[in-house]
Amino acid sequence: MAEEPDVTAAPALPASGARPTIADVARRAGVSKGLVSFALNDRPGVKAETRERILGVADELGFTPSVRARALSVDRSFALGLVIARDPSIVAADPFFPTFISGVESELSEVGQALVLASTTSQRQEAETYRQLAGDKRVDGVFLTDLRANDERIGLLQKLGLRAVTLGRPDVSSPFPAVSSDDGAGIRAVVDHLVLLGHTRIAHVAGPADLLHAAHRRTAFEGAMTDAGLDATRVVETDFSAREGAEATRRLLAVRSSHRPTAIVYSNDPMAIAGIAIARRAGLDVPRDLSVAGFDNTDLAEHVYPSLTSVATDVALWGATAARVLLAAVAGDAIDGRTPLPTRLVIRESTAAAPTTT
Amino acid sequence: MAEEPDVTAAPALPASGARPTIADVARRAGVSKGLVSFALNDRPGVKAETRERILGVADELGFTPSVRARALSVDRSFALGLVIARDPSIVAADPFFPTFISGVESELSEVGQALVLASTTSQRQEAETYRQLAGDKRVDGVFLTDLRANDERIGLLQKLGLRAVTLGRPDVSSPFPAVSSDDGAGIRAVVDHLVLLGHTRIAHVAGPADLLHAAHRRTAFEGAMTDAGLDATRVVETDFSAREGAEATRRLLAVRSSHRPTAIVYSNDPMAIAGIAIARRAGLDVPRDLSVAGFDNTDLAEHVYPSLTSVATDVALWGATAARVLLAAVAGDAIDGRTPLPTRLVIRESTAAAPTTT
Repeated sequence: MAEEPDVTAAPALPASGARPTIADVARRAGVSKGLVSFALNDRPGVKAETRERILGVADELGFTPSVRARALSVDRSFALGLVIARDPSIVAADPFFPTFISGVESELSEVGQALVLASTTSQRQEAETYRQLAGDKRVDGVFLTDLRANDERIGLLQKLGLRAVTLGRPDVSSPFPAVSSDDGAGIRAVVDHLVLLGHTRIAHVAGPADLLHAAHRRTAFEGAMTDAGLDATRVVETDFSAREGAEATRRLLAVRSSHRPTAIVYSNDPMAIAGIAIARRAGLDVPRDLSVAGFDNTDLAEHVYPSLTSVATDVALWGATAARVLLAAVAGDAIDGRTPLPTRLVIRESTAAAPTTT
Repeated sequence: MAEEPDVTAAPALPASGARPTIADVARRAGVSKGLVSFALNDRPGVKAETRERILGVADELGFTPSVRARALSVDRSFALGLVIARDPSIVAADPFFPTFISGVESELSEVGQALVLASTTSQRQEAETYRQLAGDKRVDGVFLTDLRANDERIGLLQKLGLRAVTLGRPDVSSPFPAVSSDDGAGIRAVVDHLVLLGHTRIAHVAGPADLLHAAHRRTAFEGAMTDAGLDATRVVETDFSAREGAEATRRLLAVRSSHRPTAIVYSNDPMAIAGIAIARRAGLDVPRDLSVAGFDNTDLAEHVYPSLTSVATDVALWGATAARVLLAAVAGDAIDGRTPLPTRLVIRESTAAAPTTT
C-alpha cells in the first residue's frame, strides 16, 4: 500500500550550489533512500527514533522534497467515501445503509482500504463536505446515494475531479458508472402474485418520495396495478419507519369492508410487520382477511408469525459490486456495472387467496 | 477546519544566500500568503489554475516548506476511526453498530469531521489496520469496541501514539477514557419484573460469549436469578441472529410443561420477536402461557403484536458521548466518560403474571 513517492530534489536555486539530494540524506543518516522517502511521507514501518533522525539530518542539510513531488506523494488516499445527506438516525433506521455498508466493507477489507463516512444535514454543508474530501485528498472516490431529480452533485464531483459510482441511474447525463437494483421488477412480481390470488383492492405503503429507490417502487406499483386494470390510487407515503407504517395501515383499514383493501404491499419489511400487528388489533386475520407483503426480505421476515412474503434484494451484493466498480474506476479501469441486480419474490404465510367478498 | 499550517522556510543552506520565503512566492504569484499555504497543503478553496500557478512559482523560486513543517502540517486528519474486527455482515446483523455509528456521526457532522470505517477479518490484519491508520495519519483517534479479555489492542494503540476511547471498561489497565452502558442494571430490572409477576422458571437467550456486552448481560441474568434464589442455568448462547433466537426458543420449550420456562429474557429484540413466533407455533399464547422480554428497545418493539417488553439502551447517545470524549482527548482535554449510561425497562404486552402451575 505504501508505494514509494517521488522525492527527488527540486531544481538548484539561482546563484547557489547544487541542493542536497535524497541520497545525501540517506548517506548521512546511514539508511536506504527508500527509508528516507517513507520517513518524509509519514508512511508506516519506520521506527519513531529512525524517523526523528532522518528528519533531523534532512533539516540539517536543508533537504526538502520538491513542492510538486509533495503534492504527488499524497495523490492516493486508499480510501473511498460515502456522504449521507440526511439525519444520522436514518443510518440506523433504514436497513438499507448498514447492509450496503457491510457489502462495501467486505470488498474494501480484502484490499486493505477504508471507508470514510460523513453525514451532512444540509445540502450546502453536503457540497462543502465533498470539497473537503477532494481538497484534503481524503478519498480516491465516492459512492453517490439517494439520487435526486436533476442531481447537482454529478457536476460538483466532476468539477472536484473525484471518481464516483452512482447507486441507480441519475436522470442527468453522468460520466460515472452506475450500479442499480431492479426494485421495479420485484414490486411487479408482488402485485402479479396478489392479482393471481384474486385480489383487486391492493394498497401500497410507500417510502419518502425524495428517495429515488422509494419512488421507483411506488411507480412500479402504480404501473403494475394499471396494467392489471386495477385502481392504483390506494397509496400512502411514509418515512420508512415502523411507526408511520402502522399509522398508514390504520388509515387504509379505516373504511367500510366493501372498500377496504384486501392486500397491502409495503415498501420495506419493518412497516409490513407493524402493519400485521395493526390488522390483528383491528380483528383482522393475516392472511385470511388481509394479505401483507414486505420489501428487502430482512432477517426477521421468515421468523415473524405469520412469516412475511417479501421481495429479496441483495443490498450487501449491491454494496460489494459498487465497491468493485469504484475501485476499478480509481485504478483507471472501466467496469460495466449497469446490469441491474436481480430481485426475487419470497412467498411465505402472509399472502393468500383474497377473501370472497360478501 | 483548514487552519493555516506552518510553512516558514527552512534555515539557510550552508554557503548559500537566504532561501526564498512564502512571502516571495505570494508576491511573485500575486496572491496572499494564506492562499499559498492552502495551495501547498492541498486544502480546499483554491482554484485548480491558481494552485497550479502557485506551485509553478514555488518550484521556479526553489521554495519548499521545511520537512519538519510539512510533517507538522499533516499532524491532524480531522477524522476518527472505527475498526470492526468481525465479518462485515455483523455491521448489518447486529443493530448495535448502525445505531452507534449514527450517534457518532451526529457529533462529527456538527464539527465537520469524518468517520473512517475499517473491517478486518483476522486479528493480525486488525493490528496492521491500526498501524496504517496511525502511520498514514488517517485518523486522530479511534473507538475501541468489542473489548476482549486481556485486550492487546490497548498496548498497541499506546505504542502507535493513537488517541482512543474504549466502549466499556477493559480488564487491563488502560490510559484511555471509557464510555459504558449499564446493561447489567437493565437485565436485573427485567428479572425483578418477572419475579414480581410470580415467574420462577426464567430462561435467558444470550448473545456470543466473546462479545463483552453480551457476556455482561448473561452475567447480570445469572446474578439476578441467584439473588432471587432461582435456578440460573436455563441459558442458551446464540450469535444474536433471529434464526438462532428461534432455534434457542424451540430447545427451551421442548420439555414437559412442568419444567418448561414460563418466561424468557432475550439479549436482543429480533431474537425475542422470533421467539414469540415460535411460541405461537407451539400453541402457546404470549403472554398468557409465556412471558417474553427483549433488549435494546428497537423501533419495532412497540409495533409488533403483542408489543414487546424491552430494555431501552440509548446506543445512539452512547456513540455521541464516545465521540465527544474522543474529540476532547484529541484536543488534549480530558472528559470523564466513566459514568455508565443508564438503561430503562419498558413494560409492554409481552410480559404478564406467571401461569398458575397445575
